[in-house]
Amino acid sequence: MAAVVQQGTDEKSPEKVFIPENMGDGVRNAKYAVRGAIVKRAYEIQADLIDCDKDKYPFSSIVFCNIGNPQAFISPPITFHRQVLACTMYPPLMKEAKLLKFPADVVTRAQRILNSTAHQNIGAYTNSQGLLTVRQSVAAYLKRRDGFDADPTNMFLTNGASAGITYCIQCLGSRASDGILIPLPQYPLYSAQITLNGGTAVPYFLDENADWSASLDSIEAAVIKARGDGLAVRAIVIINPGNPTGHCFSRECIDGIIALAAKYAFVVLADEVYQENIYFKDSSPFVSFRKCLLSNADYASTVELISFHSVSKGIFGECGLRGGYMECVNIDESGRAMLVKLASINLCPNTPGQVMVDIMTAPPIEGDESYAQFKAEYETQYESLKERAAILTRELNQIKGISCNTVFGAMYAFPSVVIPDAVAERAVAAYAGDARLTGKPVDFVYCWELLEKCGVCVIPGSGFGQKEGSYHFRTTLLPPKKQIQFVVGALAKFHELFIETYSK
Amino acid sequence: MAAVVQQGTDEKSPEKVFIPENMGDGVRNAKYAVRGAIVKRAYEIQADLIDCDKDKYPFSSIVFCNIGNPQAFISPPITFHRQVLACTMYPPLMKEAKLLKFPADVVTRAQRILNSTAHQNIGAYTNSQGLLTVRQSVAAYLKRRDGFDADPTNMFLTNGASAGITYCIQCLGSRASDGILIPLPQYPLYSAQITLNGGTAVPYFLDENADWSASLDSIEAAVIKARGDGLAVRAIVIINPGNPTGHCFSRECIDGIIALAAKYAFVVLADEVYQENIYFKDSSPFVSFRKCLLSNADYASTVELISFHSVSKGIFGECGLRGGYMECVNIDESGRAMLVKLASINLCPNTPGQVMVDIMTAPPIEGDESYAQFKAEYETQYESLKERAAILTRELNQIKGISCNTVFGAMYAFPSVVIPDAVAERAVAAYAGDARLTGKPVDFVYCWELLEKCGVCVIPGSGFGQKEGSYHFRTTLLPPKKQIQFVVGALAKFHELFIETYSK
Repeated sequence: MAAVVQQGTDEKSPEKVFIPENMGDGVRNAKYAVRGAIVKRAYEIQADLIDCDKDKYPFSSIVFCNIGNPQAFISPPITFHRQVLACTMYPPLMKEAKLLKFPADVVTRAQRILNSTAHQNIGAYTNSQGLLTVRQSVAAYLKRRDGFDADPTNMFLTNGASAGITYCIQCLGSRASDGILIPLPQYPLYSAQITLNGGTAVPYFLDENADWSASLDSIEAAVIKARGDGLAVRAIVIINPGNPTGHCFSRECIDGIIALAAKYAFVVLADEVYQENIYFKDSSPFVSFRKCLLSNADYASTVELISFHSVSKGIFGECGLRGGYMECVNIDESGRAMLVKLASINLCPNTPGQVMVDIMTAPPIEGDESYAQFKAEYETQYESLKERAAILTRELNQIKGISCNTVFGAMYAFPSVVIPDAVAERAVAAYAGDARLTGKPVDFVYCWELLEKCGVCVIPGSGFGQKEGSYHFRTTLLPPKKQIQFVVGALAKFHELFIETYSK
Repeated sequence: MAAVVQQGTDEKSPEKVFIPENMGDGVRNAKYAVRGAIVKRAYEIQADLIDCDKDKYPFSSIVFCNIGNPQAFISPPITFHRQVLACTMYPPLMKEAKLLKFPADVVTRAQRILNSTAHQNIGAYTNSQGLLTVRQSVAAYLKRRDGFDADPTNMFLTNGASAGITYCIQCLGSRASDGILIPLPQYPLYSAQITLNGGTAVPYFLDENADWSASLDSIEAAVIKARGDGLAVRAIVIINPGNPTGHCFSRECIDGIIALAAKYAFVVLADEVYQENIYFKDSSPFVSFRKCLLSNADYASTVELISFHSVSKGIFGECGLRGGYMECVNIDESGRAMLVKLASINLCPNTPGQVMVDIMTAPPIEGDESYAQFKAEYETQYESLKERAAILTRELNQIKGISCNTVFGAMYAFPSVVIPDAVAERAVAAYAGDARLTGKPVDFVYCWELLEKCGVCVIPGSGFGQKEGSYHFRTTLLPPKKQIQFVVGALAKFHELFIETYSK
């Protein structure tokens, strides 16, 4: 038990109560670089620029490459999606469908969803796990994708994938003795939630020399070491396609991880939110953990798997709607009941997000009136993302001192940056007097300067985890082609200057 | 540190991992009656009824009185709200405004909100605290309501009020030595989140004989006892208007609580989600903690206050959209930064919920084209809720053995039920063999039987907290008048039978 700090006296106290010193270790120590100090600084600069304080900076706007937020980059939503959403929000629109030239399947879809609510109204709380009709759409999607039936009872609709991940970590990672395997580099939601809840992160390093694949040996070594340290390893987090790495896991690797989960009895938490963001579909396709598990005679009915998906990514990127789902395989009823309880305490996921999950998992199909337009819009976006992924990788690799693995999937590049030790030391020392950078590693300083000098906002590799002595940053591939070219051009000049400046 | 349980062996393990035995005390022990065992049973019965297994029950449908979910009761949404939402979802509708007969202020509103987003699109993640234009609307609302300026920087838009409350309890109630004062009876979100996060709930009893007001003496006694037990009392939760009690706090009582907060240095967490649900506006108006604090020369700049509001309640009850906000007063920048971090880890509140917060805090005003219809719809709903509150109280008080305080506000009645000790003992004993009721108090048995015999779903008082030996239940006042009359009629017969059955 933490020491008790008595606050206040019988006199009026001038001290504040709502301060970090009065909060637990979890809240104080949790970190989330994707919206951390560099992004905060970027918003400050943006505000300065809007306030016409333009002479302070050698650029006129910020390129926000810090987060996978497609619709912040003139990436328009899919028409069908938004027509259905509008009809569920304001059902009288359905009567004007002809006038509005809404395709017939827009109305059918909106009506099916409304029929699943109380009184044709998405303004009511739904079941804590979400509307049944939406969970049935998810189940049908999983059946089509993997070839195995799914049960809506084992499905939870959530406010983005983040909410489901949070529930799972609340369950399995709330004690210092509970270990959760996380990849490094990782999406920092995992480390943040493990810290917040009081569990222990057990890192395993992804292999940059093998396109950021996971090495089974390194996972096994991490488990054995953690057990030796007295931890019970409860779960492994896999992000496939990888964030920030862009790696797509091979079937063999997935099978190997499942075998390890069986051998060491831990739950697999499969973050598959980028499953539609696959840029080499033939040579490096997406294979779900669910499909691998359920087609594996040895483990299909034993290994525990929870998979996550989201409407925020894919081709349409409806981040603002905060829709997502998780599906449980081989989870005991007693454990599922804990998830139901956590979902209930939060009442229900937001209904527009639920509607979007329905659309994502049951898009228009051939024969539907919306199909042609949907397909055209979808493919335009897909081809454009694929092209941007290729351009970004190619151009980054042309910069001396920077190298980047192929981006097979997801929305990011995570290039390696060569910074000699002496340069790193001098760069860090140069900010010794600046409280905002005190104690920060050199990749943070690097990204800070890149922002201050070029207006480009990327996230230092230390926010995701990297091998000691290696440096990286994460950038999205979402800006339009021209902006990507600007970013890479600026980076090339910046990198040279950075190394030069701190070489002496 | 909890004992380490090693899971698994080098052989394939048949044991499950995702089970309560492997979870922390918080998840295992958290309770949330509003969607707990009785509601689960109600859904089972409803499924039976839909499957035409009608002969099993002496009724043909369930009346769900367990939750404040207005739109589940044929309470239609407000037209203006949904027209604006539809336009933000699918902006091309704005071009068809004339055709659709959408009033001009619908388009202006939608356009203002879209202008505040990246690229006119609510599909992008927003700032973690929510869109600035919406926070400005909230600030203007608070100024109108209380007469004091508000700063959008101190405001967090949230997924319902629940998300903001969760952040605050994560901050102040994550250690066994952190005490949070909660009223009894309370809305069980508070106890659930305190248990989940590892803090300690410090109960203070509301006074049923004083219309469920808070007694300052009993709060002070609770603080002194908690301190004696080694706790640091970090915050007090006040629910005004009361849930489940329906009480509206007087200005004097609020002033007294603020003085206690100053004296004992704790933060005030003011849950004011029912501030529009006030049924005796002249004699028992809503007074915000914020107004009382900011007009108090002694404490205006010292006592720390965080207030919560939601789009789920009020007259329109847009529960499904999960919109809400919290506003911080006198919170130190270092503490506010912790809230920003927690909000950032969850990326951003859902955008349709944000839109609804804007509409709630900046409704149409005189001169706006939508005003007349808005006003008419609003007042119809308001008068109907007020009437239902009066009918429910009056009729409950006509049942022998049941008595109910006036419902001054909110959406519930929390009547007291007289159950003699001998009756209670026999009723509990009657279910000794039924695992679903094992260890449950008599008010749970009472509500369970009411559900099984009459199809009426209410929540036992033990789910909210009550003085030992007293029994209550919570019912919403939301069903239509006829259904309320059915509920009260059924209850009258049921109560008599219950007492008679277990009297011998």
